[in-house]
Amino acid sequence: MRVLMIGAGGVGDAAARIAAERDFFEAWFVADYDLTRAERTVAAVQSRSAKESRFTALQVDASSATAVSELATEVGATHVFNAVDPRFVMPIFEGALAAGADYLDMAMSLSERHPEEPYARAHVKLGDRQFAQQESWEQSGRLALLGIGVEPGLSDVFARYAADHLFSHIDELGTRDGANLVIRDDAGNEIFAPGFSMWTIIEECLNPPVVWERARATRPDGTVDLDRGFFTLPAFSDPEMFDFPEGIGPVECVHVEHEEVLLMPRWVDAEKVTFKYGLGAEMIAMLKTLQTLGLDSTTPIEVKGVMVAPRDVVAAALPDPGTIGPRMEGNTCAGLWVTGTGKDGRPRRTYLYHVVDNADSMRDYDAQCVVWQTAINPVVALELLASGVWTGTGVLGPEAFDAAPFLDLLAAPRPQGYGSPWGMEDR
Amino acid sequence: MRVLMIGAGGVGDAAARIAAERDFFEAWFVADYDLTRAERTVAAVQSRSAKESRFTALQVDASSATAVSELATEVGATHVFNAVDPRFVMPIFEGALAAGADYLDMAMSLSERHPEEPYARAHVKLGDRQFAQQESWEQSGRLALLGIGVEPGLSDVFARYAADHLFSHIDELGTRDGANLVIRDDAGNEIFAPGFSMWTIIEECLNPPVVWERARATRPDGTVDLDRGFFTLPAFSDPEMFDFPEGIGPVECVHVEHEEVLLMPRWVDAEKVTFKYGLGAEMIAMLKTLQTLGLDSTTPIEVKGVMVAPRDVVAAALPDPGTIGPRMEGNTCAGLWVTGTGKDGRPRRTYLYHVVDNADSMRDYDAQCVVWQTAINPVVALELLASGVWTGTGVLGPEAFDAAPFLDLLAAPRPQGYGSPWGMEDR
Repeated sequence: MRVLMIGAGGVGDAAARIAAERDFFEAWFVADYDLTRAERTVAAVQSRSAKESRFTALQVDASSATAVSELATEVGATHVFNAVDPRFVMPIFEGALAAGADYLDMAMSLSERHPEEPYARAHVKLGDRQFAQQESWEQSGRLALLGIGVEPGLSDVFARYAADHLFSHIDELGTRDGANLVIRDDAGNEIFAPGFSMWTIIEECLNPPVVWERARATRPDGTVDLDRGFFTLPAFSDPEMFDFPEGIGPVECVHVEHEEVLLMPRWVDAEKVTFKYGLGAEMIAMLKTLQTLGLDSTTPIEVKGVMVAPRDVVAAALPDPGTIGPRMEGNTCAGLWVTGTGKDGRPRRTYLYHVVDNADSMRDYDAQCVVWQTAINPVVALELLASGVWTGTGVLGPEAFDAAPFLDLLAAPRPQGYGSPWGMEDR
Repeated sequence: MRVLMIGAGGVGDAAARIAAERDFFEAWFVADYDLTRAERTVAAVQSRSAKESRFTALQVDASSATAVSELATEVGATHVFNAVDPRFVMPIFEGALAAGADYLDMAMSLSERHPEEPYARAHVKLGDRQFAQQESWEQSGRLALLGIGVEPGLSDVFARYAADHLFSHIDELGTRDGANLVIRDDAGNEIFAPGFSMWTIIEECLNPPVVWERARATRPDGTVDLDRGFFTLPAFSDPEMFDFPEGIGPVECVHVEHEEVLLMPRWVDAEKVTFKYGLGAEMIAMLKTLQTLGLDSTTPIEVKGVMVAPRDVVAAALPDPGTIGPRMEGNTCAGLWVTGTGKDGRPRRTYLYHVVDNADSMRDYDAQCVVWQTAINPVVALELLASGVWTGTGVLGPEAFDAAPFLDLLAAPRPQGYGSPWGMEDR
């Protein structure tokens, strides 16, 4: 396996550090628009293991499918692993196919609001542009594995696991994400610095959240139309206190737009699919202010003679999420709340989850917990693809694969597995 | 009198419209960095009075004292009137002196925080850099009239009026500013759009507010040190509900950094000088969010290959305050709350104020009320200087001049006066 990873931001950097401990690939190319970032990641990997020669830093323009394709061909990539922000999904996705490589990402092609009823009807949904190319991928015999970070990614693996091993009927697949992370400045005062790209947080949280419900997917004649099951809500809808495990406790969660809602109904039977994010009151107020001030906009405006998109400025003004690990404390939790009927025929309510303590990811990988938790899952998936435990062609989500070997490999102690256990709580 | 007005934003544009009705000057040059803005202002003036030939549009770089000086010399300006944002005070101020012209502004040179105790001790204060050049202005026999907008400006005229005509002893000179303005989008929904430059609002409100108190200005030996009377507070200190007249009603006011506190103690006797702004809870929350996100910063950062200051982006993302008049409803009130002992020896508490209804400023001048209320005062001052009623040399505030003729000319019906009455309420 020869991996071309595009993007050496926080997640790409952590993925390289995790991959460096594994034997399943022969080469890992780290490409970034900014070559010095790619070089920094390769240097970090080599400083952890001096004889590591499988990693190479390269420059690439991820906005150009041609540039991606040419580079993938040049380095003989078998897998193109997209680790940049979701604006670049389509050129990388198309560049990989043109080069005859398999493809993985951790976020899907962007949505577009319904022009008349943005807070009621779905329009162009997350991933629609990728699933539209399903036939080309199948015909070429190549695999595009979409959404294989932590959320989407591990959450989708949990969905498949719940359907196969825990439930005979699922009412709701509800991804619930929460944390108790605190970031401090040099003087020890708590500061605001999100653990993930603020560009993406704004995109997820201010877009109309999407929900899938089977009830809405039934036509008058009784046949089921998958697409009709999707509808949207106003941002920050249905606040709910969700109790997160391992000391995090209750956090206010609201609906946001997220890939799981688009992926899970394609492969897993359920009555309803939702995603709620534990934003907390402070972040919700901030996002509302950004919206009120027009600072969520991605349309460039003229500012003193230069053109910039306000949202890019908001993201650039905050600390780089990849650099805040040393100043962070606490746990982050990704998980799936499943309700329905258990294999024994009795009502069941189970939370499947994965918690990472920032102190652990910093100690073992010098990576902050939120980006590390995202980065580990595509590496596990690549290893399962390299060993042939996972196989497939076409455009697929994580739910299309057997969940058990993924969860086993993730949890097994190092060096056999990845040493990152997941948990399960019946409530 | 030949006026070189620098800046054709909202305030400059309104000042030109007001001035066009008066006879006291022979030429009014409208100069802007963006020539099309200057031309738009001149076209607006000429569309209101076809035979108006005193106005000319010009281009200038206000960040260059040399450019300002050369232009002022070229057009034979007797008065340079600064109508741009306060970052450009120093080059315009210095350019005017170099050209041998008098100078007026509506905001003073910017402050700098105390490096160790920003929320306790004043450091470089508003206007300090201008007052430092007092000697050069006096020696050249030229006048620099600082802070002659509405606040600072009319508020300072009220202070002098209160001292001369209403009070024998003043405890507090407290500028209090509030409004009940609402801005609507095309569909009639209320939207957020400040009536004044967001750049300046951030500067005023997030800088440590400055207060002057005589008690703190007394040395152990009993002599008074003016400078020691200034101290600072944390932003948004001492919230107070102030009841504004003419239907506005109670608005929550907090301390902000403002020129009046620096000007009034130089010419008017009082125990304490404060400025409180009726920001309201929504604006306070927004400003705190901008600060938390680092979007108040004026230091350029790199965003996708270009350098921009986040605060410039915040200002640019909002509607131009000069354009929102047609969508605005309500009244804006500027005024001075004076407490102390009246001329009759009895306790007195008086609010001197000036209220503008947006409907009136739109009807008569096609200008929104907040910028119009700022713009009228320097025009009145220029007329008093042209007629010789006001005279002076050196760097002076509005308090240094007799208040009565100013207030009379402002309030007298058009066309003799400016037809904009002020009010007084004893409480």
